[in-house]
Amino acid sequence: MAKLLLAIVMLLHVSSSTSSTSSSSPSSTVLQPLFQYIDEHQDEFVQRLGEWVAVKSDSSDRALWGEVQTLLNMTADRLREMGAQVELADTGTQQLSSGESVSLPPVVLAQFERDPNKPTLCFYGHVDVQPAKMEDGWIADPYNLTERDGNLYGRGATDNKGPVLAWLHAVETYRATKQEVPVNLKFIIEGMEEVGSDGLDELIRLRNESFFSDVDYIVISDNVWVSRRPALTYGTRGSSYFFVEVEGPKIDLHSGVFGGSIQEPMTDLIALLGSLLDHTGKVLVPGLNEAVAPLTEEERKLYEDIHYDLEEMKKEIGVKHFLQDNKEGILMARWRYPSLSIHGIEGAFSDPGSKTVIPRRVIGKFSVRQVPNMEPAVVERQVKQHLQEVFARHKSPNILTVSSSVGAKPWVADPRDPQYIAGRKAVKAVFGVEPELIREGSTIPIAANFQEVTGKSVMMLPIGGHDDGEHSQNEKISRYNYIQGTKLFAAFFHELSQLPKDP
Amino acid sequence: MAKLLLAIVMLLHVSSSTSSTSSSSPSSTVLQPLFQYIDEHQDEFVQRLGEWVAVKSDSSDRALWGEVQTLLNMTADRLREMGAQVELADTGTQQLSSGESVSLPPVVLAQFERDPNKPTLCFYGHVDVQPAKMEDGWIADPYNLTERDGNLYGRGATDNKGPVLAWLHAVETYRATKQEVPVNLKFIIEGMEEVGSDGLDELIRLRNESFFSDVDYIVISDNVWVSRRPALTYGTRGSSYFFVEVEGPKIDLHSGVFGGSIQEPMTDLIALLGSLLDHTGKVLVPGLNEAVAPLTEEERKLYEDIHYDLEEMKKEIGVKHFLQDNKEGILMARWRYPSLSIHGIEGAFSDPGSKTVIPRRVIGKFSVRQVPNMEPAVVERQVKQHLQEVFARHKSPNILTVSSSVGAKPWVADPRDPQYIAGRKAVKAVFGVEPELIREGSTIPIAANFQEVTGKSVMMLPIGGHDDGEHSQNEKISRYNYIQGTKLFAAFFHELSQLPKDP
Repeated sequence: MAKLLLAIVMLLHVSSSTSSTSSSSPSSTVLQPLFQYIDEHQDEFVQRLGEWVAVKSDSSDRALWGEVQTLLNMTADRLREMGAQVELADTGTQQLSSGESVSLPPVVLAQFERDPNKPTLCFYGHVDVQPAKMEDGWIADPYNLTERDGNLYGRGATDNKGPVLAWLHAVETYRATKQEVPVNLKFIIEGMEEVGSDGLDELIRLRNESFFSDVDYIVISDNVWVSRRPALTYGTRGSSYFFVEVEGPKIDLHSGVFGGSIQEPMTDLIALLGSLLDHTGKVLVPGLNEAVAPLTEEERKLYEDIHYDLEEMKKEIGVKHFLQDNKEGILMARWRYPSLSIHGIEGAFSDPGSKTVIPRRVIGKFSVRQVPNMEPAVVERQVKQHLQEVFARHKSPNILTVSSSVGAKPWVADPRDPQYIAGRKAVKAVFGVEPELIREGSTIPIAANFQEVTGKSVMMLPIGGHDDGEHSQNEKISRYNYIQGTKLFAAFFHELSQLPKDP
Repeated sequence: MAKLLLAIVMLLHVSSSTSSTSSSSPSSTVLQPLFQYIDEHQDEFVQRLGEWVAVKSDSSDRALWGEVQTLLNMTADRLREMGAQVELADTGTQQLSSGESVSLPPVVLAQFERDPNKPTLCFYGHVDVQPAKMEDGWIADPYNLTERDGNLYGRGATDNKGPVLAWLHAVETYRATKQEVPVNLKFIIEGMEEVGSDGLDELIRLRNESFFSDVDYIVISDNVWVSRRPALTYGTRGSSYFFVEVEGPKIDLHSGVFGGSIQEPMTDLIALLGSLLDHTGKVLVPGLNEAVAPLTEEERKLYEDIHYDLEEMKKEIGVKHFLQDNKEGILMARWRYPSLSIHGIEGAFSDPGSKTVIPRRVIGKFSVRQVPNMEPAVVERQVKQHLQEVFARHKSPNILTVSSSVGAKPWVADPRDPQYIAGRKAVKAVFGVEPELIREGSTIPIAANFQEVTGKSVMMLPIGGHDDGEHSQNEKISRYNYIQGTKLFAAFFHELSQLPKDP
């Protein structure tokens, strides 16, 4: 980890020299007509985004899976028009609570003609969206793309319809300007991302020896920048979700009649949850912090280069102060240190008003965000052991059961991989600045899954702005980011093709 | 308090002597025909309970207030038939959340002809019930009184329709056997008890100088025994309900993106709730335990006489052990010491499954059961101060707001009052044993309210069994308790009339 980060720092410092050694054809000659085409066709690209946003592909609503399928078909058609071989791959069925089995929407697998002399790039994206309703606080119809002050508002504008279209438009731009796409391209586009990518892992595993066998690089554009500056993302935190169940009497009890004479499950649970972290946010489960990759001076410096406006962020989320008092501390807490959040309690009274029952069984819920070098299985064991030890000290007559789910691993890539170099050059070419090398505090299991199953280099190349509001009301992507993002992808194809064969 | 309890102990020890001094007419001569009438008419009394249970007087359901009114009318008619003057007293209106005002069901105020030479007894009861649905786990229709193994199952059988009818039948028995009722009787019967007795306090206050002015004793039969032995109840705990609100960011946040960098309201709340009591059930709020009336040796001895089967109770509620390891300790914890129960959290995730949001605002809810000599207003101040001090130590950027409601005072009566002596004699006459002198851990505000507003002696004279399941599925009263309870009330009228005029 330390070695890897040292490499990042070095890369940042040698970027100007590397860019002068790699060009077999001058970048500007190639890129200028591409950029011009994109600028000239931006209204058309925005219009197409409008057509996509209008499809209510909300995968959380079974009744809208037909819309998801419609948009997958539109994606497939578009890829075919551009000359790709397209398969709508079956991903099996989902068992409903009623017992009925329903077919899952397929996954689009597309590949363009292959030239063995070119590197092969596989793009992952999704066309389904989170739910959106006017009454949630949208200013305008979430399914009618609306431009205000340079921003394109609509559900899916940034997550992930805009970026998927930007990839398609980048390919279209090469074709329209009669330039050969300088890389072999593959696409894997799904419609179930917002509800957990059912069936996708299995499909990746099944196609590892076929579809993925000749892939060199996998790129995901399903996140956003952290500031106003472009970014490359080289890591995400993992996550495990825990359920702490304390079961006591066989019936709910009247707190007046029995209060004071029995050990209440809620008292046990509150003590258990209270033992997990202190008021500085430090996780108190023994072993968790010890597993964190040590912070080196080089890595610390890396954080200095990231633009993060504390005051703006405080205002945006409405907090008086963060747990850390400087930018570096905050970003490290979000990206490179574990965190623990208590989400709620099932089985206790949760409605407005008052109720005086002693609930017989309560389930506390919390999640741990994991970072290298934590192992979900080890964390699970440590958390369970800690809770059991605390519980044993209380000599409670109640029964404790700790279970967990998810267990998504943290992901961290090697930014010395060629595609990161190409990504940085592409950013420089389009935006005129070096990208920020960032990580995500949230868990994007697909990145770790791609890396683990295929063993390929994975990069997240976001084009969305830090204030796009994925999953929120009034989600948007700015016209600037959408159009410059399209240029970024076109430039990225070029820069990737320009890398020395054996770096 | 200590003096008072010493008096109870003394009373228990002199009971056999007192009973031989009080009879102006021999009790057996008077009571035998009454008891015989009650035994002979028990099927009729059970049938009438069936008619009352069939009226779905669930006051929690606005749509069923008509049924409540029906039963109040039936009660009034029955009282009129027996010669009482009856008023259906207006208790004002209730404001619905829609803004609409609706009239509350009236309260039945009844009085029989007054003889200035007799003591005046006022009985309080209610004819409304808790909700009941087959799907909650009733074995048979809750509104169709069903007899199984000597028990009469039905909603309201014990709470409070059975006891109210037992009072009416006791009066009827005197009249039918051509005996003069030896006390002046008043009845106050309401239909909103299960939803907080809206309007009742105000009515008591308004009628304090009229209806209540000549009342000597107030009796409530709205609780149950604590064992298989009859009981007189001389105290209840008070209650205050607290809301601890912690408000943080202006929006719910993604725990992956922000986890570790902000002080989460749930972390604050769990620490606050965890500071309230330790794992032995001891309340940690400074000042609360210090206010509790000291336990004297005399009072301790009083608890020895109470029959309470630990093993049976453990089985009944399904706990492995209590916080105390002996009967006395458990009953004291329930009756004479304060307790604190955490009921739940509003605003956090409470559904089944998993959700990884950091809730922006959470409200913890707990209640404190209060005992003499605690003052609700002082307790409120102590709890708030404690929480604010704990919160201040955490230096949280979040906002803490503590509010409270209810604030019902604890109630404790003086069991040297004549009606307690009469009550004990009546129990002895019907059941052949001394009653247990017990308290209630739960809060029955009406007892404290009657005492506070009218200044009269209040006694709770229960006839329900400890396993009747008030508010639960399959609520019942045993035929034995219902019929012997009717005798108890008849005997009580007699014993009260036999007390020396100036005790």
